[in-house]
Amino acid sequence: MRMYDLITKKKHGEVLTDAEITYMIDGYVKGDIPDYQMSAMLMAIWFQGMTDHEITELTKVMAKSGDMIDLSAIAGKKVDKHSTGGVGDKTTLICAPIVAACGGKVAKMSGRGLGHTGGTVDKLESIPGYQTALSREKFFDTVNKCGVSVIGQSGNLAPADKKLYALRDVTATVDCIPLIASSIMSKKLAAGSDCILLDVKTGSGAFMKTLDDSIKLAQTMVAIGELAGRRTVALITDMDTPLGYGIGNSIEVMESMDVLKGKGPADLREVSLQLAANMLYLVGKGTPEECRAMAEQSIADGSAFETFCTMVRAQGGDDSVLRDYTKFQQAPYRAEIKAERSGFITKMNAEEIGETSVVLGAGRETKESDIDFSAGLILHKKYGDEVKEGDTLVTLYTSKESALADAEKMYRDAIAIGDVQPAKEPLVYARVEKDKVEKY
Amino acid sequence: MRMYDLITKKKHGEVLTDAEITYMIDGYVKGDIPDYQMSAMLMAIWFQGMTDHEITELTKVMAKSGDMIDLSAIAGKKVDKHSTGGVGDKTTLICAPIVAACGGKVAKMSGRGLGHTGGTVDKLESIPGYQTALSREKFFDTVNKCGVSVIGQSGNLAPADKKLYALRDVTATVDCIPLIASSIMSKKLAAGSDCILLDVKTGSGAFMKTLDDSIKLAQTMVAIGELAGRRTVALITDMDTPLGYGIGNSIEVMESMDVLKGKGPADLREVSLQLAANMLYLVGKGTPEECRAMAEQSIADGSAFETFCTMVRAQGGDDSVLRDYTKFQQAPYRAEIKAERSGFITKMNAEEIGETSVVLGAGRETKESDIDFSAGLILHKKYGDEVKEGDTLVTLYTSKESALADAEKMYRDAIAIGDVQPAKEPLVYARVEKDKVEKY
Repeated sequence: MRMYDLITKKKHGEVLTDAEITYMIDGYVKGDIPDYQMSAMLMAIWFQGMTDHEITELTKVMAKSGDMIDLSAIAGKKVDKHSTGGVGDKTTLICAPIVAACGGKVAKMSGRGLGHTGGTVDKLESIPGYQTALSREKFFDTVNKCGVSVIGQSGNLAPADKKLYALRDVTATVDCIPLIASSIMSKKLAAGSDCILLDVKTGSGAFMKTLDDSIKLAQTMVAIGELAGRRTVALITDMDTPLGYGIGNSIEVMESMDVLKGKGPADLREVSLQLAANMLYLVGKGTPEECRAMAEQSIADGSAFETFCTMVRAQGGDDSVLRDYTKFQQAPYRAEIKAERSGFITKMNAEEIGETSVVLGAGRETKESDIDFSAGLILHKKYGDEVKEGDTLVTLYTSKESALADAEKMYRDAIAIGDVQPAKEPLVYARVEKDKVEKY
Repeated sequence: MRMYDLITKKKHGEVLTDAEITYMIDGYVKGDIPDYQMSAMLMAIWFQGMTDHEITELTKVMAKSGDMIDLSAIAGKKVDKHSTGGVGDKTTLICAPIVAACGGKVAKMSGRGLGHTGGTVDKLESIPGYQTALSREKFFDTVNKCGVSVIGQSGNLAPADKKLYALRDVTATVDCIPLIASSIMSKKLAAGSDCILLDVKTGSGAFMKTLDDSIKLAQTMVAIGELAGRRTVALITDMDTPLGYGIGNSIEVMESMDVLKGKGPADLREVSLQLAANMLYLVGKGTPEECRAMAEQSIADGSAFETFCTMVRAQGGDDSVLRDYTKFQQAPYRAEIKAERSGFITKMNAEEIGETSVVLGAGRETKESDIDFSAGLILHKKYGDEVKEGDTLVTLYTSKESALADAEKMYRDAIAIGDVQPAKEPLVYARVEKDKVEKY
């Protein structure tokens, strides 16, 4: 077998066999196939696409290139959740304890933030003492005891994807649904859960800017999951506007706890409940409607919040901060940004707002940057809201006083105030299950 | 400027600016742009193509990446000739002296053979004493004195093309008309002639297997030449069957001399006359019809043959071999291959016959291989000819007795004898001039 011939096949739109995909990925990981051949292949895939079967094989081979985590030490059905990344997206902090409180098992490895989107692991580490690096045994124990454990990614998960992604990143082949889908799903397959709930973000703050592309990506990932023997559902959720009002690390933990306590912003609560309900549906807890009711109940009776506190304690964290937010480290500098005119918020660019939070210190500009846990933004007005001149639009929080001026300018550029109130957009656009798309 | 953005543009079918093409090629030659980015770009070009303007810019930048030969020391209009490569294609040996005898100037740098096609330089070196490595001054002098000089490629011609071609060769991006056209034309522009006659081969022994593709390649190259200020014409000629009867080095020199002496195979004579007439037309010697008559006259009056002999002497060669072929080095082993049945030659695969000549020693298997000047084949029956069982189909010549059995097998596989006489194919399919295609 020669990589040259595989490039030729794909270039002409032919389908690669399982053996060819294995040869290609294994050879690339070993270094037998050079970057310049793989990048030609990636560009050919960008143009010609791949069948669901090809994508599934690619995903499996990439998953098997590293550790395949065996979760059988955890009793019951395990459900994973993946979000394609958004600004103010703290739903894992809410869904995971809800699902655990209702009897599902969530053994979740999360990432750190990079660029304009935050990472669940960074958010959790804003809770004093919370350990995100657990041994595999301690991880399994925590899930068995609490129903949930959220830790940082450990081990050598899908190294083929890591190498391939680095190449895509410099050869303009990132924006390719088969490659995005296989990249995400290879890590999900390796992570070992029985079921996978995908939250595909759509809109200005998301990687997928259009609903059609988001649905296509969701369908591809659901097909991969199901072909690989994992029950998989995807929701397409809005990321034109940040989710909730808080963006940052401890700021997002506090807002999540508000939701678990039956308060918090309506949009965040609604999206979290739909995600949690679908996770419960996947592990077989009932119909989507029954699962929704269970999820609501776990908030109403406090069991979801208590589950989260139990997990925090099990992982060394101080859960008293979750009951008394003043115990969180506080940002020394803050600034309230006022509206310079009256009208309606007619634009709210989630990506630019995410970048504003990075400038304030809440995110990383490079992999090595430190996170300022207390930094971030609390929005006071969101897309579609009416504002009067002088109203506070947002409060900025930071430990770097010098960042406030830049952040204010960025924030003002990220939004627009106009005369006509825009129509509200849906929070959840569609739900994708095997061979089924429901648009809302 | 970033290569990443240029890949993105081309991927989306946008047109690269002149500055972008310069940045890309210069950066690649310098090593600032890595192979893996260039191969992604090449694949994007394979899918999206390039405009004539883009291809011309690419060609110019590649030409300027090395020496640009200045032929102004040679009086009069210089005309170059390029063939896309064929089996038994010895037309340069015939056209060049015809054009010189009629007052055109031919300052030609030719290549060596590699793979199944021979090289003019190897053929000329079969003439005892003939020097193909001349100083630039001696080269110019020879053209001024004889009207023609054919030497090997010297200097650093289009190194960007060399580097790019090596990458295309391993990334399945060779078969791309914009890239083929710019590769050929960059070397022609650098070689410095005022006019360029292109012989685009079509058929089983050629790189372009279909007439449509051959015409498209010819049109692209003519557009580049004209946009770069060089008068350019292309003929599309047949390479389903080898040209003439001889394949080898001294074998092809002898056959060419036969044509210059007013003898030789009709197909070779006809194609050579059409090529020579168009070269004379390009340098302004008259209408195509007038130029054809001049070319024929130069054969009839012996001036073309004498011009060739003069050039050979000027370059240190012994022209007596051209008058008495027995003075050429003779192949120690030969074999006549007989027809095993009667019928008609219904197939003659030029590429496979070219490979047979390599096995006999006439060509190179690798760049380092030595050439056996006396080795090769003389066909006795060609495509469409009637044969009787026991007729000699071909005579094989070699210095390696052991090669004869393999070569016989290869030759028998390359041809077929059937019951129905096939229609003869045209020798010249089409002529392409600026904005004009004439099909014959």
